[in-house]
Amino acid sequence: MTERSERIDALLRSLPELDWCLNPSEVKRKSLDYFWFSPVLRRQLESKSADAVVRPRDVDELREIVAGCVRENLPLTMRGGGTGNYGQAIPLNGGVVVEMTACDRLLWLKHGVARAQAGIKLGVLDEQLAPHGWELRCMPSTYRMATLGGLFCGGFGGIGSITYGPLSAPGTVLGIKVMTVEAQPRVIELRSPAAMQHAHTYGTNGIILELEIALAPAHEWDEYLLTFRDPQAAFACGQAVAQAPGIIKKETAVFADSVAQYFKKLSPYIGAGEHAAIVAISASNREALEMLVDGAGGRIAFTQSGAVGKATQHTLLEYCWNHTTLHALRSDKSLTYLQTSYEYGREREQLAFIDKEAGGEMSNHLEFIRDDRGRVICNGLPLVRFTTESRLRELIALHRECGVGVKDPHVYTLEDGTRHGAMSPASLAAKRRFDPGGLLNPGKVTSAR
Amino acid sequence: MTERSERIDALLRSLPELDWCLNPSEVKRKSLDYFWFSPVLRRQLESKSADAVVRPRDVDELREIVAGCVRENLPLTMRGGGTGNYGQAIPLNGGVVVEMTACDRLLWLKHGVARAQAGIKLGVLDEQLAPHGWELRCMPSTYRMATLGGLFCGGFGGIGSITYGPLSAPGTVLGIKVMTVEAQPRVIELRSPAAMQHAHTYGTNGIILELEIALAPAHEWDEYLLTFRDPQAAFACGQAVAQAPGIIKKETAVFADSVAQYFKKLSPYIGAGEHAAIVAISASNREALEMLVDGAGGRIAFTQSGAVGKATQHTLLEYCWNHTTLHALRSDKSLTYLQTSYEYGREREQLAFIDKEAGGEMSNHLEFIRDDRGRVICNGLPLVRFTTESRLRELIALHRECGVGVKDPHVYTLEDGTRHGAMSPASLAAKRRFDPGGLLNPGKVTSAR
Repeated sequence: MTERSERIDALLRSLPELDWCLNPSEVKRKSLDYFWFSPVLRRQLESKSADAVVRPRDVDELREIVAGCVRENLPLTMRGGGTGNYGQAIPLNGGVVVEMTACDRLLWLKHGVARAQAGIKLGVLDEQLAPHGWELRCMPSTYRMATLGGLFCGGFGGIGSITYGPLSAPGTVLGIKVMTVEAQPRVIELRSPAAMQHAHTYGTNGIILELEIALAPAHEWDEYLLTFRDPQAAFACGQAVAQAPGIIKKETAVFADSVAQYFKKLSPYIGAGEHAAIVAISASNREALEMLVDGAGGRIAFTQSGAVGKATQHTLLEYCWNHTTLHALRSDKSLTYLQTSYEYGREREQLAFIDKEAGGEMSNHLEFIRDDRGRVICNGLPLVRFTTESRLRELIALHRECGVGVKDPHVYTLEDGTRHGAMSPASLAAKRRFDPGGLLNPGKVTSAR
Repeated sequence: MTERSERIDALLRSLPELDWCLNPSEVKRKSLDYFWFSPVLRRQLESKSADAVVRPRDVDELREIVAGCVRENLPLTMRGGGTGNYGQAIPLNGGVVVEMTACDRLLWLKHGVARAQAGIKLGVLDEQLAPHGWELRCMPSTYRMATLGGLFCGGFGGIGSITYGPLSAPGTVLGIKVMTVEAQPRVIELRSPAAMQHAHTYGTNGIILELEIALAPAHEWDEYLLTFRDPQAAFACGQAVAQAPGIIKKETAVFADSVAQYFKKLSPYIGAGEHAAIVAISASNREALEMLVDGAGGRIAFTQSGAVGKATQHTLLEYCWNHTTLHALRSDKSLTYLQTSYEYGREREQLAFIDKEAGGEMSNHLEFIRDDRGRVICNGLPLVRFTTESRLRELIALHRECGVGVKDPHVYTLEDGTRHGAMSPASLAAKRRFDPGGLLNPGKVTSAR
């Protein structure tokens, strides 16, 4: 076979009209994501790069790219906003990065359901839904950059998941349109649950063109920064807000003082040693929140309407989920993080155990969400003071030992990222059907061939 | 003291302009409610009657009535739509029934909060909210007749509680306006939680004039009648819908075949021996529901939009909550019911135990709701084949024995209706403040004097 560089050249020559990016530093930038949150992934992935980046302007161009890559036997790596944290969008074996952000149309909206192209930014989509009284059910804190397809392929949920659960909760993603990676690419419509075989597979199970998603009614949200002298009180108050059926909510997160200290722009509001919570609730529920905060011995340190947050581009939502991690890592490069899930009803006990065993190395950042069984559970994105990779493994083992689930954010293959270290047979079957040649970021799925 | 009839005459003479009802059969009818659901209460309460009924046209008239009753030392019993099941609106010692249904204005609506007079019918209020994109968070199946004040004073919640919990969930009732029963009645505004000392006290803690309530976003609801050969499958499917965070819902109820048989107008859709579920979900969640029904081996026997249900005056919501009981009792006068609450996580075990011990006398009607801790729990309004009062007590004891909570619907005093058989000190203090003379339906609260 000819060298990859020759095959890239052949591809470029065959498709000269496309929006290519070949500038090496730009190609390098668009080959990476937020993988550097993990020192392990940084070591493993920082040398990776595509040979070229292309940004299809429409589905026809995308089809030509796919056909061309199949013809030239070139890897393709799909990219949305590039906001993933596990190298979801990093090409492991060069080839072409396909940036989907120009395929960004809201196609239709009716009866609380929207259909949009995968490359639409979540923030843009949310703004287009708002005048109709709807909003996204859940979105990452990176919604300004992240795309709908990226959320589906590499994300989880986030803001909104306290009410509607993760994006994968049945009823939220209704259908997808997927292109096969074949010499003559086909476009196939899938409804859920079949569609969900393509979720969270990092764009390796075919190319997601469109998503049809059920929406949430839009609310006037108010954002609150709450502070507490006592970490238990912060947890109790966050949990009480999260659980209260009479409080309509979009976000409930709790931060140890050692995490909240990294919220530089919020420092005027947070006293030394104060633990914090950020909640976004319906404007109609102010008094109920005040009651819970008073009852927990906390105080409302700062509040603003979501509209003001949007207008000033300073929303408290951008201190939650992995934006928390981002704020911390910007200040202190020696930090990294874990992704944890505490057992329903054992949260305090597990948190106390971890604190006793590893409190000096870890700082709590908790996010309440609703799980698939409708329970308000507590997930975490705790900060970790990184020393060595083996110590990081020990900390993960320590969590698992006491029953805390860990979704390891320091691995980059699809299999290592799953709970059981393996893809499901159904997901593998979908992979073989939609990417028979294994061209979608080869190396990402180790069990596919 | 003069005879009560003389004092009634004096009152009538002093307020000749009011909208009095003195026709004995009408007075009798307006002195009763759905107490006859209980054979025990039927025996105890069927002889009760007011001496007169008055329907104040505004708050000034109400004030004159209250002042007049205090002057003449006459009992007052507050009445909304008269849809209670425990004699909430039945005067135990005659006097005046005050029917609040003419005080029925929606006062304002903003930011997802409404303020309305207590006498507004819930269905009317809901219709006034709809054009603004809002609806009630929860309401009884009797919403066409029941009033807002009646729900607050004698109700629970019902339709909608699967998402927003009972009416008492903090954040839903924000404030109330209450009139004292004094020679010169005062009007006092209370915010929650103080306002909640007046909830579910059957109108004996002062006279509720207005309520301020947080609302829910209105949805296009679709109503589904689901049927199942297997009762376990019906339960599992109902619970799965209730728990699914990705299914926006308003109602999830499950009925044994022996209950569903009483749904006469639905009989074309329910096969012999089929168990049923009724759910109301967002129109955007049809496919997710189909998936769950298929998975449970059930079928969609009938479906309609909520709008059609409204237009035809045949909504499936009027087969749920105590309308289930009503449908059954209309067919079979020997039936009565219980109000049960199964322990979270032990529902199947408890239901199996009851079925084994008393299956021949009881038929399951289950309602899923969200509790104060945000959990999807299972309440019941099981039908009971009535034999004797002592057997009814045994059945209640049997439930409590295995940990099922029973709110006894066969008692009529406020104390007997509470979990611990006593009013809280705070509620008693409110009683003494707002009704110092104990004129509000004397006998209803036994510990007040």
